[in-house]
Amino acid sequence: MSTPPLIGQLIEALRCLPGVGPKSAQRMAYHMLERDREGARQLAEVLNEAVDKVGHCQQCRTLSETALCNLCASQKRERSLLCVVESPIDVQAIMQATDYRGLFFVLMGHLSPLDGIGPEDIGMDLLAERIRNDDIHEIILATNPTVEGEATAFYISDLAREADIPCTRIAHGVPLGGELEYIDKGTIAHAFSGRRKL
Amino acid sequence: MSTPPLIGQLIEALRCLPGVGPKSAQRMAYHMLERDREGARQLAEVLNEAVDKVGHCQQCRTLSETALCNLCASQKRERSLLCVVESPIDVQAIMQATDYRGLFFVLMGHLSPLDGIGPEDIGMDLLAERIRNDDIHEIILATNPTVEGEATAFYISDLAREADIPCTRIAHGVPLGGELEYIDKGTIAHAFSGRRKL
Repeated sequence: MSTPPLIGQLIEALRCLPGVGPKSAQRMAYHMLERDREGARQLAEVLNEAVDKVGHCQQCRTLSETALCNLCASQKRERSLLCVVESPIDVQAIMQATDYRGLFFVLMGHLSPLDGIGPEDIGMDLLAERIRNDDIHEIILATNPTVEGEATAFYISDLAREADIPCTRIAHGVPLGGELEYIDKGTIAHAFSGRRKL
Repeated sequence: MSTPPLIGQLIEALRCLPGVGPKSAQRMAYHMLERDREGARQLAEVLNEAVDKVGHCQQCRTLSETALCNLCASQKRERSLLCVVESPIDVQAIMQATDYRGLFFVLMGHLSPLDGIGPEDIGMDLLAERIRNDDIHEIILATNPTVEGEATAFYISDLAREADIPCTRIAHGVPLGGELEYIDKGTIAHAFSGRRKL
Protein backbone atom coordinates (compact mmCIF):
# COMPACT_ATOMS: atom_id res chain seq x y z
CA MET A 1 0.00 0.00 0.00
CA SER A 2 0.97 3.57 -0.58
CA THR A 3 0.22 5.22 2.78
CA PRO A 4 3.40 7.07 3.81
CA PRO A 5 4.65 5.59 7.12
CA LEU A 6 4.18 8.79 9.14
CA ILE A 7 0.58 9.16 8.00
CA GLY A 8 0.08 5.51 8.95
CA GLN A 9 1.49 6.25 12.40
CA LEU A 10 -0.75 9.29 12.74
CA ILE A 11 -3.82 7.23 11.82
CA GLU A 12 -2.79 4.65 14.41
CA ALA A 13 -2.24 7.31 17.10
CA LEU A 14 -5.63 8.93 16.45
CA ARG A 15 -7.29 5.61 17.24
CA CYS A 16 -6.58 6.18 20.93
CA LEU A 17 -9.53 8.60 20.81
CA PRO A 18 -12.81 6.99 21.92
CA GLY A 19 -15.23 6.27 19.08
CA VAL A 20 -12.59 6.68 16.38
CA GLY A 21 -12.23 3.67 14.07
CA PRO A 22 -9.82 3.16 11.16
CA LYS A 23 -11.95 5.09 8.64
CA SER A 24 -12.49 8.17 10.83
CA ALA A 25 -8.85 8.14 11.87
CA GLN A 26 -7.80 8.13 8.21
CA ARG A 27 -10.17 10.99 7.46
CA MET A 28 -8.88 12.99 10.44
CA ALA A 29 -5.23 12.45 9.52
CA TYR A 30 -5.67 13.53 5.90
CA HIS A 31 -7.91 16.43 6.87
CA MET A 32 -5.34 17.86 9.25
CA LEU A 33 -2.39 17.41 6.91
CA GLU A 34 -4.24 18.78 3.91
CA ARG A 35 -6.19 21.57 5.48
CA ASP A 36 -5.48 22.30 9.13
CA ARG A 37 -1.82 22.02 10.04
CA GLU A 38 -2.18 24.96 12.40
CA GLY A 39 -4.94 23.12 14.27
CA ALA A 40 -2.83 19.96 14.42
CA ARG A 41 0.10 21.89 15.88
CA GLN A 42 -2.20 23.51 18.44
CA LEU A 43 -3.77 20.16 19.37
CA ALA A 44 -0.34 18.60 19.93
CA GLU A 45 0.71 21.47 22.16
CA VAL A 46 -2.47 21.44 24.28
CA LEU A 47 -2.34 17.65 24.58
CA ASN A 48 1.17 17.81 26.00
CA GLU A 49 0.32 20.67 28.32
CA ALA A 50 -2.83 18.97 29.59
CA VAL A 51 -1.05 15.65 30.22
CA ASP A 52 1.72 17.54 32.04
CA LYS A 53 -0.40 19.79 34.20
CA VAL A 54 -3.77 18.16 34.80
CA GLY A 55 -3.65 16.03 37.92
CA HIS A 56 -6.20 15.15 40.58
CA CYS A 57 -7.84 17.30 43.24
CA GLN A 58 -6.45 16.29 46.68
CA GLN A 59 -9.88 16.48 48.22
CA CYS A 60 -12.36 15.09 45.65
CA ARG A 61 -10.04 13.27 43.18
CA THR A 62 -11.52 14.95 40.11
CA LEU A 63 -9.22 16.12 37.29
CA SER A 64 -7.72 19.46 38.24
CA GLU A 65 -4.77 21.66 37.36
CA THR A 66 -4.51 22.86 40.95
CA ALA A 67 -4.09 20.98 44.24
CA LEU A 68 -7.74 21.75 45.05
CA CYS A 69 -10.27 21.85 42.17
CA ASN A 70 -12.28 25.06 41.90
CA LEU A 71 -15.40 23.46 43.42
CA CYS A 72 -13.54 22.20 46.50
CA ALA A 73 -11.71 25.53 46.79
CA SER A 74 -14.87 27.59 46.42
CA GLN A 75 -16.26 29.29 49.53
CA LYS A 76 -19.75 29.41 48.03
CA ARG A 77 -20.55 25.69 47.99
CA GLU A 78 -22.66 23.97 50.63
CA ARG A 79 -19.99 21.85 52.37
CA SER A 80 -22.44 19.58 54.20
CA LEU A 81 -23.69 17.98 50.97
CA LEU A 82 -21.52 15.39 49.23
CA CYS A 83 -22.42 13.86 45.87
CA VAL A 84 -20.44 10.75 44.87
CA VAL A 85 -19.94 10.14 41.14
CA GLU A 86 -17.82 7.79 39.05
CA SER A 87 -16.06 10.24 36.77
CA PRO A 88 -15.23 13.96 36.31
CA ILE A 89 -17.57 14.15 33.33
CA ASP A 90 -20.45 13.19 35.65
CA VAL A 91 -19.64 16.30 37.71
CA GLN A 92 -20.09 18.39 34.56
CA ALA A 93 -23.35 16.62 33.74
CA ILE A 94 -24.83 17.25 37.21
CA MET A 95 -23.59 20.86 37.34
CA GLN A 96 -25.12 21.56 33.93
CA ALA A 97 -28.47 19.91 34.66
CA THR A 98 -29.20 20.77 38.29
CA ASP A 99 -28.82 23.58 40.81
CA TYR A 100 -26.88 21.32 43.18
CA ARG A 101 -24.90 23.54 45.57
CA GLY A 102 -22.80 20.96 47.41
CA LEU A 103 -19.44 19.28 46.88
CA PHE A 104 -18.52 16.18 44.89
CA PHE A 105 -16.40 13.14 45.42
CA VAL A 106 -15.13 11.54 42.22
CA LEU A 107 -14.30 7.85 42.45
CA MET A 108 -12.49 7.78 39.06
CA GLY A 109 -14.04 4.37 38.44
CA HIS A 110 -16.22 1.82 40.22
CA LEU A 111 -15.75 -1.33 42.25
CA SER A 112 -15.06 -4.21 39.89
CA PRO A 113 -13.47 -7.21 41.62
CA LEU A 114 -13.27 -9.13 38.32
CA ASP A 115 -10.99 -6.40 36.90
CA GLY A 116 -9.05 -6.24 40.16
CA ILE A 117 -10.50 -2.86 41.12
CA GLY A 118 -11.04 -2.81 44.88
CA PRO A 119 -12.04 -0.06 47.34
CA GLU A 120 -8.48 1.32 47.62
CA ASP A 121 -8.32 1.90 43.83
CA ILE A 122 -11.32 4.21 43.85
CA GLY A 123 -10.25 6.34 46.80
CA MET A 124 -12.50 4.75 49.43
CA ASP A 125 -9.97 5.47 52.18
CA LEU A 126 -10.12 9.19 51.31
CA LEU A 127 -13.93 9.08 51.17
CA ALA A 128 -14.19 7.18 54.46
CA GLU A 129 -11.95 9.77 56.11
CA ARG A 130 -14.16 12.57 54.83
CA ILE A 131 -17.29 10.78 56.01
CA ARG A 132 -15.75 10.43 59.50
CA ASN A 133 -14.20 13.89 59.83
CA ASP A 134 -16.28 16.34 57.80
CA ASP A 135 -19.62 17.63 58.95
CA ILE A 136 -21.70 15.96 56.22
CA HIS A 137 -25.50 16.00 56.42
CA GLU A 138 -26.29 14.02 53.28
CA ILE A 139 -24.42 11.77 50.85
CA ILE A 140 -25.99 11.58 47.40
CA LEU A 141 -24.98 8.48 45.46
CA ALA A 142 -24.93 9.24 41.75
CA THR A 143 -22.89 6.29 40.46
CA ASN A 144 -24.15 4.76 37.21
CA PRO A 145 -27.07 2.28 37.34
CA THR A 146 -24.85 -0.62 36.21
CA VAL A 147 -24.01 -3.72 38.23
CA GLU A 148 -20.66 -2.18 39.25
CA GLY A 149 -22.16 1.24 39.94
CA GLU A 150 -24.87 -0.28 42.14
CA ALA A 151 -22.32 -2.37 44.04
CA THR A 152 -20.22 0.75 44.58
CA ALA A 153 -23.26 2.69 45.82
CA PHE A 154 -24.09 -0.15 48.19
CA TYR A 155 -20.53 -0.18 49.57
CA ILE A 156 -20.62 3.58 50.21
CA SER A 157 -24.08 3.43 51.80
CA ASP A 158 -22.56 0.95 54.30
CA LEU A 159 -19.80 3.45 55.16
CA ALA A 160 -22.43 6.15 55.60
CA ARG A 161 -24.60 3.97 57.82
CA GLU A 162 -21.63 3.25 60.12
CA ALA A 163 -21.03 7.00 60.44
CA ASP A 164 -24.76 7.58 60.84
CA ILE A 165 -25.06 9.96 57.87
CA PRO A 166 -28.22 10.01 55.72
CA CYS A 167 -27.52 8.58 52.28
CA THR A 168 -29.68 8.93 49.15
CA ARG A 169 -29.51 7.39 45.68
CA ILE A 170 -30.56 9.36 42.58
CA ALA A 171 -33.80 8.04 41.05
CA HIS A 172 -33.71 5.60 38.16
CA GLY A 173 -36.66 5.07 35.88
CA VAL A 174 -38.20 6.04 32.58
CA PRO A 175 -36.28 9.06 31.18
CA LEU A 176 -38.27 12.23 30.40
CA GLY A 177 -39.65 12.07 26.87
CA GLY A 178 -39.10 8.30 26.83
CA GLU A 179 -41.93 6.08 25.64
CA LEU A 180 -42.65 2.91 27.62
CA GLU A 181 -42.85 0.93 24.38
CA TYR A 182 -39.17 1.55 23.63
CA ILE A 183 -37.72 1.32 27.14
CA ASP A 184 -35.79 -1.78 28.20
CA LYS A 185 -37.39 -4.20 30.67
CA GLY A 186 -34.89 -3.54 33.46
CA THR A 187 -35.66 0.18 33.45
CA ILE A 188 -39.42 -0.40 33.42
CA ALA A 189 -39.18 -2.90 36.29
CA HIS A 190 -37.06 -0.39 38.22
CA ALA A 191 -39.48 2.47 37.52
CA PHE A 192 -42.44 0.31 38.53
CA SER A 193 -41.03 -0.91 41.84
CA GLY A 194 -39.75 2.57 42.61
CA ARG A 195 -43.14 4.26 42.03
CA ARG A 196 -44.03 7.22 44.25
CA LYS A 197 -47.30 8.38 45.73
CA LEU A 198 -48.82 11.39 43.97
CA MET B 1 -18.81 26.27 35.16
CA SER B 2 -16.24 24.00 36.66
CA THR B 3 -14.27 22.78 33.62
CA PRO B 4 -10.60 23.46 34.41
CA PRO B 5 -9.21 25.90 31.79
CA LEU B 6 -6.69 23.45 30.30
CA ILE B 7 -9.36 20.79 29.79
CA GLY B 8 -11.50 23.48 28.15
CA GLN B 9 -8.61 24.32 25.82
CA LEU B 10 -8.10 20.64 25.02
CA ILE B 11 -11.80 20.24 24.19
CA GLU B 12 -11.55 23.30 21.92
CA ALA B 13 -8.39 21.99 20.21
CA LEU B 14 -9.96 18.57 19.56
CA ARG B 15 -12.73 20.27 17.60
CA CYS B 16 -10.29 20.84 14.72
CA LEU B 17 -10.82 17.15 13.93
CA PRO B 18 -13.49 16.59 11.28
CA GLY B 19 -16.77 15.22 12.60
CA VAL B 20 -15.96 16.08 16.23
CA GLY B 21 -18.55 18.29 17.94
CA PRO B 22 -18.53 19.68 21.50
CA LYS B 23 -19.88 16.47 23.08
CA SER B 24 -17.40 14.10 21.39
CA ALA B 25 -14.54 16.50 22.06
CA GLN B 26 -15.46 16.55 25.77
CA ARG B 27 -15.64 12.75 25.83
CA MET B 28 -12.26 12.47 24.09
CA ALA B 29 -10.57 14.96 26.41
CA TYR B 30 -11.78 13.27 29.59
CA HIS B 31 -11.11 9.79 28.21
CA MET B 32 -7.49 10.64 27.46
CA LEU B 33 -6.83 12.39 30.76
CA GLU B 34 -8.54 9.72 32.82
CA ARG B 35 -7.45 6.60 31.01
CA ASP B 36 -4.93 7.06 28.21
CA ARG B 37 -2.26 9.65 28.96
CA GLU B 38 0.31 7.50 27.19
CA GLY B 39 -1.83 7.56 24.03
CA ALA B 40 -2.29 11.33 24.32
CA ARG B 41 1.46 11.83 24.61
CA GLN B 42 2.04 9.58 21.61
CA LEU B 43 -0.61 11.40 19.57
CA ALA B 44 0.96 14.79 20.33
CA GLU B 45 4.36 13.53 19.25
CA VAL B 46 3.17 11.95 16.00
CA LEU B 47 1.08 15.05 15.18
CA ASN B 48 4.13 17.27 15.48
CA GLU B 49 6.31 14.90 13.51
CA ALA B 50 3.75 14.52 10.72
CA VAL B 51 3.20 18.29 10.42
CA ASP B 52 6.97 18.79 10.32
CA LYS B 53 7.86 16.08 7.84
CA VAL B 54 4.90 15.39 5.56
CA GLY B 55 5.05 17.63 2.51
CA HIS B 56 4.00 17.18 -1.09
CA CYS B 57 5.39 14.94 -3.83
CA GLN B 58 7.19 17.10 -6.42
CA GLN B 59 5.69 15.12 -9.25
CA CYS B 60 2.09 14.31 -8.29
CA ARG B 61 1.46 16.73 -5.39
CA THR B 62 0.15 14.03 -3.03
CA LEU B 63 1.13 14.08 0.65
CA SER B 64 4.57 12.53 1.02
CA GLU B 65 7.49 12.47 3.43
CA THR B 66 9.98 12.25 0.56
CA ALA B 67 10.55 14.48 -2.49
CA LEU B 68 8.92 11.81 -4.65
CA CYS B 69 6.07 9.73 -3.19
CA ASN B 70 6.53 5.97 -3.32
CA LEU B 71 4.17 5.57 -6.27
CA CYS B 72 6.00 8.17 -8.39
CA ALA B 73 9.36 6.73 -7.32
CA SER B 74 8.34 3.13 -8.06
CA GLN B 75 9.83 1.48 -11.14
CA LYS B 76 6.94 -0.96 -11.32
CA ARG B 77 4.14 1.45 -12.24
CA GLU B 78 2.85 1.92 -15.77
CA ARG B 79 4.07 5.47 -16.49
CA SER B 80 1.87 6.04 -19.54
CA LEU B 81 -1.35 6.03 -17.48
CA LEU B 82 -2.24 9.08 -15.41
CA CYS B 83 -5.24 9.19 -13.08
CA VAL B 84 -6.24 12.64 -11.82
CA VAL B 85 -7.92 12.83 -8.38
CA GLU B 86 -8.84 15.62 -5.99
CA SER B 87 -7.19 14.42 -2.80
CA PRO B 88 -4.59 11.97 -1.43
CA ILE B 89 -7.33 9.93 0.19
CA ASP B 90 -8.81 9.29 -3.28
CA VAL B 91 -5.49 7.69 -4.24
CA GLN B 92 -5.90 5.29 -1.31
CA ALA B 93 -9.49 4.55 -2.30
CA ILE B 94 -8.57 3.70 -5.91
CA MET B 95 -5.51 1.67 -4.89
CA GLN B 96 -7.59 -0.33 -2.44
CA ALA B 97 -10.49 -0.98 -4.83
CA THR B 98 -8.87 -1.51 -8.23
CA ASP B 99 -5.82 -3.08 -9.82
CA TYR B 100 -4.85 0.24 -11.45
CA ARG B 101 -1.14 0.09 -12.31
CA GLY B 102 -0.50 3.67 -13.47
CA LEU B 103 0.48 6.93 -11.79
CA PHE B 104 -1.65 9.60 -10.13
CA PHE B 105 -1.87 13.34 -10.15
CA VAL B 106 -3.41 14.85 -7.02
CA LEU B 107 -5.00 18.28 -7.46
CA MET B 108 -5.32 18.87 -3.68
CA GLY B 109 -8.67 20.51 -4.38
CA HIS B 110 -10.87 21.43 -7.32
CA LEU B 111 -11.59 24.51 -9.40
CA SER B 112 -13.91 26.80 -7.48
CA PRO B 113 -13.92 30.38 -8.79
CA LEU B 114 -16.40 31.45 -6.08
CA ASP B 115 -13.85 30.47 -3.41
CA GLY B 116 -11.04 32.05 -5.40
CA ILE B 117 -9.53 28.68 -6.34
CA GLY B 118 -8.20 28.91 -9.87
CA PRO B 119 -6.12 26.54 -12.07
CA GLU B 120 -2.80 27.68 -10.57
CA ASP B 121 -4.02 26.73 -7.03
CA ILE B 122 -4.60 23.11 -7.99
CA GLY B 123 -1.30 22.58 -9.80
CA MET B 124 -2.62 22.86 -13.35
CA ASP B 125 0.72 24.27 -14.57
CA LEU B 126 2.48 21.14 -13.26
CA LEU B 127 -0.18 18.89 -14.81
CA ALA B 128 -0.06 20.74 -18.18
CA GLU B 129 3.71 20.33 -18.20
CA ARG B 130 3.40 16.60 -17.60
CA ILE B 131 0.76 16.30 -20.31
CA ARG B 132 3.10 18.04 -22.78
CA ASN B 133 6.37 16.35 -21.83
CA ASP B 134 5.59 12.84 -20.53
CA ASP B 135 4.64 9.99 -22.81
CA ILE B 136 1.06 9.61 -21.57
CA HIS B 137 -1.37 7.31 -23.40
CA GLU B 138 -4.47 7.89 -21.30
CA ILE B 139 -5.63 10.38 -18.70
CA ILE B 140 -8.30 9.02 -16.35
CA LEU B 141 -10.37 11.76 -14.70
CA ALA B 142 -11.50 10.61 -11.25
CA THR B 143 -12.52 13.94 -9.70
CA ASN B 144 -15.70 13.85 -7.63
CA PRO B 145 -19.08 14.04 -9.40
CA THR B 146 -19.86 17.46 -7.90
CA VAL B 147 -20.29 20.71 -9.83
CA GLU B 148 -16.69 21.69 -9.03
CA GLY B 149 -15.32 18.23 -9.73
CA GLU B 150 -17.07 18.13 -13.14
CA ALA B 151 -15.80 21.60 -14.04
CA THR B 152 -12.29 20.55 -13.08
CA ALA B 153 -12.56 17.37 -15.19
CA PHE B 154 -13.81 19.46 -18.12
CA TYR B 155 -10.87 21.84 -17.77
CA ILE B 156 -8.36 18.97 -17.79
CA SER B 157 -10.04 17.26 -20.74
CA ASP B 158 -9.45 20.50 -22.67
CA LEU B 159 -5.74 20.37 -21.81
CA ALA B 160 -5.65 16.73 -22.92
CA ARG B 161 -7.42 17.48 -26.20
CA GLU B 162 -4.89 20.19 -27.05
CA ALA B 163 -2.08 17.68 -26.46
CA ASP B 164 -4.02 15.01 -28.36
CA ILE B 165 -4.09 12.53 -25.46
CA PRO B 166 -7.10 10.23 -24.95
CA CYS B 167 -9.00 11.23 -21.84
CA THR B 168 -11.60 9.13 -19.94
CA ARG B 169 -13.94 9.88 -17.05
CA ILE B 170 -14.80 7.23 -14.44
CA ALA B 171 -18.42 6.03 -14.70
CA HIS B 172 -21.11 7.56 -12.51
CA GLY B 173 -24.39 5.80 -11.87
CA VAL B 174 -26.27 3.63 -9.45
CA PRO B 175 -23.79 2.21 -6.89
CA LEU B 176 -23.53 -1.57 -6.55
CA GLY B 177 -26.09 -2.85 -4.07
CA GLY B 178 -28.04 0.39 -4.43
CA GLU B 179 -31.78 0.22 -4.96
CA LEU B 180 -33.31 2.59 -7.50
CA GLU B 181 -36.06 3.46 -5.04
CA TYR B 182 -33.58 5.08 -2.66
CA ILE B 183 -31.21 6.71 -5.17
CA ASP B 184 -31.37 10.47 -5.77
CA LYS B 185 -32.79 11.78 -9.03
CA GLY B 186 -29.51 13.22 -10.31
CA THR B 187 -27.77 9.87 -10.04
CA ILE B 188 -30.65 8.04 -11.75
CA ALA B 189 -30.72 10.61 -14.58
CA HIS B 190 -26.96 10.23 -14.95
CA ALA B 191 -27.15 6.42 -14.95
CA PHE B 192 -29.99 6.49 -17.49
CA SER B 193 -28.33 8.81 -19.97
CA GLY B 194 -25.03 6.98 -19.55
CA ARG B 195 -26.51 3.51 -20.27
CA ARG B 196 -24.35 1.06 -22.17
CA LYS B 197 -25.17 -1.60 -24.72
CA LEU B 198 -25.13 -5.16 -23.39
